[in-house]
Formats: sequence, C-alpha cells, structure tokens
Amino acid sequence: MKKITLEEIGEILRQHDDYLVLMHKSPDGDAVGCAYALCGMLRNMGKKAQTLCGDEIPELFSAVTEKLEDTELEPEFIVSVDLATEKLLSGRALEYAGKIDLCIDHHAINSEYAAVGYVDPGAAACAEILKKLFDVMGEKITPQIADALFMGVSTDTGCFKYSNVTPATHRIAAELMECGADSYGICRRFFDTKSRTKIALEKMMLDTIEYAAGGAVAFICVTKKMIEESGATQSDMDGIAAITKQIEGVKAAITMREKEDGEFRISVRSSDGVSAAAICRVFGGGGHDAAAGCSIYKPLEEAKADIIAECVKAVEASL
Amino acid sequence: MKKITLEEIGEILRQHDDYLVLMHKSPDGDAVGCAYALCGMLRNMGKKAQTLCGDEIPELFSAVTEKLEDTELEPEFIVSVDLATEKLLSGRALEYAGKIDLCIDHHAINSEYAAVGYVDPGAAACAEILKKLFDVMGEKITPQIADALFMGVSTDTGCFKYSNVTPATHRIAAELMECGADSYGICRRFFDTKSRTKIALEKMMLDTIEYAAGGAVAFICVTKKMIEESGATQSDMDGIAAITKQIEGVKAAITMREKEDGEFRISVRSSDGVSAAAICRVFGGGGHDAAAGCSIYKPLEEAKADIIAECVKAVEASL
Repeated sequence: MKKITLEEIGEILRQHDDYLVLMHKSPDGDAVGCAYALCGMLRNMGKKAQTLCGDEIPELFSAVTEKLEDTELEPEFIVSVDLATEKLLSGRALEYAGKIDLCIDHHAINSEYAAVGYVDPGAAACAEILKKLFDVMGEKITPQIADALFMGVSTDTGCFKYSNVTPATHRIAAELMECGADSYGICRRFFDTKSRTKIALEKMMLDTIEYAAGGAVAFICVTKKMIEESGATQSDMDGIAAITKQIEGVKAAITMREKEDGEFRISVRSSDGVSAAAICRVFGGGGHDAAAGCSIYKPLEEAKADIIAECVKAVEASL
Repeated sequence: MKKITLEEIGEILRQHDDYLVLMHKSPDGDAVGCAYALCGMLRNMGKKAQTLCGDEIPELFSAVTEKLEDTELEPEFIVSVDLATEKLLSGRALEYAGKIDLCIDHHAINSEYAAVGYVDPGAAACAEILKKLFDVMGEKITPQIADALFMGVSTDTGCFKYSNVTPATHRIAAELMECGADSYGICRRFFDTKSRTKIALEKMMLDTIEYAAGGAVAFICVTKKMIEESGATQSDMDGIAAITKQIEGVKAAITMREKEDGEFRISVRSSDGVSAAAICRVFGGGGHDAAAGCSIYKPLEEAKADIIAECVKAVEASL
C-alpha cells in the first residue's frame, strides 16, 4: 500500500465520480460516522457516492444514517474507512476485497490492503482523520457531516474518557460543535440512554455477581434464559464487560456468556499486573494483557468455578 | 457587588499575602478543583493560601486534595469559587459570610454577595473561568493545577456530555491536557469506577423498578433497609436519579428515597412536555420543569401509588 498525504487524498477525491465507501462488519459509531460523513461530503462536492456495510447498521445510528438516502451507482473508486483488514468485511462488501483503491484508517494493525492509504494510529477515531482531511481540502463541514464525525469521535473515545484521547481530540470536538454538531443530543443518545430491555438484563446480571480474592476478582454472568426473559437484543449486550471492570478494587473482571452447544464464552479484563491473556491461555484462549477471552465447555457452575479459580491464582501471583 | 475583569482579578491576586479560598457545602468536583487550583497557584506565586470547606471533602477528590498540605494563616483576603450564594456556606466557613472580598463563579443565579466579583454563566464549570484567569495572568499552569481544573471541567459537564458544554469547554480540556492534566486517570476515577457498595445498592434498587403509562413513567426506590444492607455511603447515592431518567421512552422518571420519620423524599426528572415541577407541586414540592422534588409522608406503597398516579396523569395530559 502506497502511503499518501491528506492533500493527495483530497486530489483523488476530486478526480472520480462514483465512489463506494466500505464499512467493517458489526459497524460501530466511528465506522458508520466516517462512511456517512465521507459519502455526504462527496455528494456535496457533486459526486455520486454510496456507503456499503455487509451487516445491518444498528438502529442506534439512525440519526446519522437516515439523513443520507441510498442511491444506485456503478462504483468507479472504492474507499474504506476505519477498516483495519479486509478480513473485517462481510456480506455484500466481501466482493470488494482486493479491489480497495483507498484506505483511511487509525488502526496501528492496519494490514495495508489498499492501493493507496493513510493510517494515523495517533488518531483516537478515524473521524479525527476525516475532519483534518476536509479541512485540508477546504470543504465546508455541514451540520449533518459534523454530527456524523462527532458520533465517530465521541463513541470511539467513550465520550472523551479513554486513554486514546489527545488534545487534538478535544480541539476537533470543539470545531465540530462550531460546524453545528449536536454534542448534547449525540452524547445523550450514546452515553445517557438505556433500553428497558437492557435495564432488565442488567438487573438479572447483577443478581449473578460474585467476588473472590477479597474483592480483586469479580464475576458476572449472562445466560440464554436471561436474554430470553429480558428480551435483550445484541446491542443491549454492548458494554456488559464494563460492569465488573468498573468496580473499585477489581483486578480481574470476568464476564461469562452462555452460547449455543454448551459453550460459555468468557471475557476477562484485568489491571494492576494481572494478565488477562495469561489467564485465558489456560483455557485455550488469548488476547491482550488487559483484555482477553476464552471458551469453557462445561456446566455453568463448573465453568464459573474454573475461571474464578484461575483469576484468583493470577491475582495472588501478582501480589 | 462590583463587577471586575479577569485582568483586575489578576492584579488583586498579586496585592495581598494571606488568601483564604472558600467552597460551598457538599462540595463537588468543580468546587474542590477550583479551590485547590487557585490555592496552588497562589502558593506558586509566593503567597500564603488555604482552602476552607465547612463540610468534609469526600475521599473521591483525594488525588487533588492530598497534593496540597494544609497551612496556618490569618486570612487577609477572602475569595469564594463556584459559590452561588452565601447560604451555601456551612460549618467553619459560615464565619466568613458577609466578609467575602472576591467571588469567582459561573452560576446565573449568583446573589452578588462579595465586594467584587466575576460571574460567567456561559462557563460550563467555574474551572473554565480559572483557566482563563491564569492565562490572562500569564501564570504557568502546573500538572497539579491542571489536574484540579480538569476535574472541575469534567465533573461539571458529566464528562463533556451535558448541554452546558461549549466549544470553549473542549478547547480548555485540550489545553489542560497540554499542561499535564491526567485526562484518562481523572475520567476513569469519576466516570468509570463504582464502589462495591454502590453496585450492591443499584442491584437492590433495580429490583424495585416499575413502569406505568406504557413505559413513559418509571419508578425506582431506595429504602433505609437497602442502604443499611448494602453498606452504601452518601457518595454512593450520587447519580441514582439518573437510573430511571436514562431509560428509553421514559418521560417522567421517579426516584423515591426513604428518610427519617416516615418521610419519602421524591425526585422527578421529566421531558417531552411533562413538567416535574407541576407534578411535585401537587405534593407541596417544587423545582424546575425538567427536575423537581417533593416529600410524601405515607407508607411506602401508598406514597409510591400517589406519585406514580400523578406522573401518569401528567404524561396523559401531555399527549
């Protein structure tokens, strides 16, 4: 992949006519925000442009997606945004694997699959890069585009909370507000709203909470029955791993989720010298030091006892 | 109260030697952050300075407060920060009512109690004003002072989420990070950490949740027994009114808390044309359209039925 500058991207985006903008599977706020912002900008520049995601885009993002009607086009130039590797394409987007002309991304692990690309791992969100791109191009950011980019920046940073936030992140947020981004509405939608089914699921999950190692290990569980009874949807599951992780004093936070065929899918988040990856490797899983996963194929109580015991061991070894 | 400029405040802060900086009772992150930032800055300028709060400062703010040791002084000049009226003084701070020389605040309802003052209701946090003041004075903002101010800005805006956030808020956050503010640590502490007792209390509270009017009214309750059994502290109560308010589709969110002597203290948060103040006035209470309170002196089930019925009526009238 040939590395190019934002200026060069600007030139390329003026040269063609029919742009297709690809998103990764299970699209998040940054992927959707970037795709819709770029598509909207290209249309404002008089181009034809269309977004494409192989998966359905969650209703959660409708405030951004409903403002841009679908259009028919013969793609002449394929762009990906926030796409680390082509392995993250799905469904109808898969046919463009190997054919991506331009990649704009912020993942350090970007696999450089496109003809040309711009990757800035220092950007907290891919939307930060697009904001800079539009400024370099001298194109006006409308309130609609500002909303899409603000959604990307705020969701990829947990509302300006995560360690990826830089001074540039806040300055971009300020400028997007000045372009008309509805900061309050977007933050309220994504960080201050829970569905009734999510509340019902959390209530059931909190009933399963258990502590070990004097509170350094916390366990929580979600079963198929709980999902059924609460009516919880896939998006209600977002962030459930944070429930135990946020508890004061917890160094190993376990979230166990019942899947099909007797599988319990386990997520471990850790801190203070406890390696989640090392814990999960014991069960054939893996991941990063701070966040890892594995599966245990045993009855609930046994699976729970196994993962808690391994976490207690890891916490004790870290003291 | 004579209105003065930030430049004039800067001159005053160079003229005296022994400064006392007052905080309001039940101090929040902005009050504590501002008092410790101003006190730290005055000491860096070679002055003697001391903070004073009539109430105990919660442990939650210790990362900021523990960096500034107490000192003895005969106050020569009294400053208040983030203090809307002298009625909000408590304990040992009460003796300075009527004697405050300078007030720096961001509350539109500031009662202008000081000899001179600067009030900017457009500032999301009083800490925004202090940041501008230190810049006007040309004084260096150390990492310690940046942390205190960042705590004020982030806590008064719900981590950049509330409607009071302006582009200036984000720019100030960016600049404080460049001065060394630990954005991630502060946000993690205030917005991503829950005590084990708070988790236990929330679990019990979720067991009391009830909906009415097709989900437009949500009710939650905390009893003395629940507080006792969970071991919850006063700071664990912070934000409990948000539990029902954040539920999708809820227009009247009720939080009912058992107090002494048979009192149930009720908080109503409302939206979509439902007036919390009108609902609470029925029970002799009051407040704003979007947030109000009242007390009902009846057994739990009756108090609950009364407030839910009134909310249902208000929701139906709003349709």
